[in-house]
Amino acid sequence: MISGERFLAIYRITGSEKEAWAKAQDLCLEETVEFPEELVPPGMIREHVFGHIEEFTPYQNNQSYRVVISFAAETAAQELTQLLNVLFGNISLKPGFCLEHLKLPETLLKNFRGPRFGRDGLREWLGVPERPLLFTALKPMGLSAEELADLAYKLALGGIDIIKDDHGLTNQVFAPFAKRAALCAKAVEKANRETGQNCIYVANVTAPATEVLARARLAKEAGARGLMAAPALIGWDTLRQLADDDRLALPIFSHPAFLGSFVTSRENGIGHAALFGQITRLAGADATIYPNFGGRFSFSSAECAQIAQGTAVPMGHLKPIFPCPGGGMSLDRVPAMLESYGAEVIFLIGGGLFKAGPDIVQNCRYFRELAENWVKPQR
Amino acid sequence: MISGERFLAIYRITGSEKEAWAKAQDLCLEETVEFPEELVPPGMIREHVFGHIEEFTPYQNNQSYRVVISFAAETAAQELTQLLNVLFGNISLKPGFCLEHLKLPETLLKNFRGPRFGRDGLREWLGVPERPLLFTALKPMGLSAEELADLAYKLALGGIDIIKDDHGLTNQVFAPFAKRAALCAKAVEKANRETGQNCIYVANVTAPATEVLARARLAKEAGARGLMAAPALIGWDTLRQLADDDRLALPIFSHPAFLGSFVTSRENGIGHAALFGQITRLAGADATIYPNFGGRFSFSSAECAQIAQGTAVPMGHLKPIFPCPGGGMSLDRVPAMLESYGAEVIFLIGGGLFKAGPDIVQNCRYFRELAENWVKPQR
Repeated sequence: MISGERFLAIYRITGSEKEAWAKAQDLCLEETVEFPEELVPPGMIREHVFGHIEEFTPYQNNQSYRVVISFAAETAAQELTQLLNVLFGNISLKPGFCLEHLKLPETLLKNFRGPRFGRDGLREWLGVPERPLLFTALKPMGLSAEELADLAYKLALGGIDIIKDDHGLTNQVFAPFAKRAALCAKAVEKANRETGQNCIYVANVTAPATEVLARARLAKEAGARGLMAAPALIGWDTLRQLADDDRLALPIFSHPAFLGSFVTSRENGIGHAALFGQITRLAGADATIYPNFGGRFSFSSAECAQIAQGTAVPMGHLKPIFPCPGGGMSLDRVPAMLESYGAEVIFLIGGGLFKAGPDIVQNCRYFRELAENWVKPQR
Repeated sequence: MISGERFLAIYRITGSEKEAWAKAQDLCLEETVEFPEELVPPGMIREHVFGHIEEFTPYQNNQSYRVVISFAAETAAQELTQLLNVLFGNISLKPGFCLEHLKLPETLLKNFRGPRFGRDGLREWLGVPERPLLFTALKPMGLSAEELADLAYKLALGGIDIIKDDHGLTNQVFAPFAKRAALCAKAVEKANRETGQNCIYVANVTAPATEVLARARLAKEAGARGLMAAPALIGWDTLRQLADDDRLALPIFSHPAFLGSFVTSRENGIGHAALFGQITRLAGADATIYPNFGGRFSFSSAECAQIAQGTAVPMGHLKPIFPCPGGGMSLDRVPAMLESYGAEVIFLIGGGLFKAGPDIVQNCRYFRELAENWVKPQR
């Protein structure tokens, strides 16, 4: 019944050596049996179901410890929901635990298809083999579906690769989902016919549980060529369901709304690379949106670099995915972002694209030029 | 198109007066239009779609401010997912914002059925009109379905009102869901026939997106008379879907696994009352499980009192629900808990019930006695 295969989770545990060790021991029980150790007789449960401390080493300051815990593959029940529960379920409620990294054996990984497209697949889907990709959002909320479609047309005309609904656009009376998706997809197709380019419209399907798949199907029928959703709002496994649906078979963009509390504290939560990289890949997203350093959010450049690493760190058959730094970005920051991320990135610029000048089509063309010019010297 | 009806969210924003004011202004845009203010022309969007600062008052220390923001009802699109997104979507990614309280007008509340049973309904379901309710969990993970059922029988025999799967029991090979639910429901029914009491078995349906409803139906058919799920793992709106399903029509118990990061920081996240009380009620749970003060978790007694308040604070037609303090509780703490919570509480004792003595049936009887004895002097 027990394969003996175990998966590893690496935590940063805060405290003195003694405190951190006690916390690590507590975690081994809390995340598995949640039961007094002394009441568990010798045998299978104690030997296999308990988490095991595999490594325990101080970080430089000796005020936190890097702790590697192993869990029996069977505890995760081949489910993303239960895997997350073992990794960070009850322990999320206790202070001083940060889940920094996962190492999953093939026994476990085989339960997850992971990203359908990944970086290479998305580049093929877009017909852009090398340069950084350009991404923007339709906004502000309050515009009509016609106004958003008109905007989508201009953004596509200017050479943007990916145009998404703003994550706050769901099914408001201002621009109801079905109408918006139909008009925006059509507007982008029209621009593509004129430019000969291959821009895609990505519909936001963050929605009530009974609506997510229905909206995704409707969007696909209307001509959307990608889907976005916020896993903290719809559930991580609902994101996976979208990604795995063979009738949809569309690239999936993960949005970080409602997810911030996992990373706003240094001592508690889930590390940037694990959350926006590894877990997002396990859930099947092809691209992970997060707030870039230097914008209006507070992620550091080191944290953003960790995310980029997490999008590509080896995870068996799981494809690398695109980091999509965004959030208060402006065009004059593109060169610095190219320095940080290289070409394997999707630049998400929303408001900054509108601020750059009165002609939005021209602004897009300039954005495109920045991305295209950069690649050439690297060849 | 705009009703003029607005809902209120109350935040604690950290910073000096100037910083907190700037953060409040930022929130008004970030959670709605996510667009540069200067680019929005006068008119409907500016007047209605923007969040508005309604009140701004310092907390005692002048290092944080109580800020009341109003949002147009239409921004929430009659969806729980989008309501949460407006309340705490992108702002979750910025430091210094804590969502403390919601005030929703009937325009918005009418979209949510809320708890089907609530406190009164659950008391009727259990046939216990007055005394505190007794709740425990089947564990540890690794036991077989037969062993868990045997345990369920003993716990029911001892007079427990509600027996749930441990939240880590999903569909592991040790005790697969279908078999476990069937055997445990049957074992509890058997005990009820012997005692004449009315104990219920509550199945944990925290599961992959495609499995949640299927397991819930299967559990109901097998005789489970309640369902538990962790909204942070399945999605808040999936919890609502379970609660609203008229074919299920079972009491819903919300579990806090994976939810801790929202409350581990004092400055960021969602306040205890709003998260475990108000939002849990909006999602339709009849009872909210959370770690009690003085146990192995770190919630303070003030935070637990806030949760209890949040379970009953007026919210239009939404029924009050039961607080279920648990987590490292022991029988000798029941009197102190009775002092804190009064009779309108469900005591969740897991491991502590096993630790109290070698005979689990006797331990349950003692637990029941503590609860029954308390009520009489209050009459």
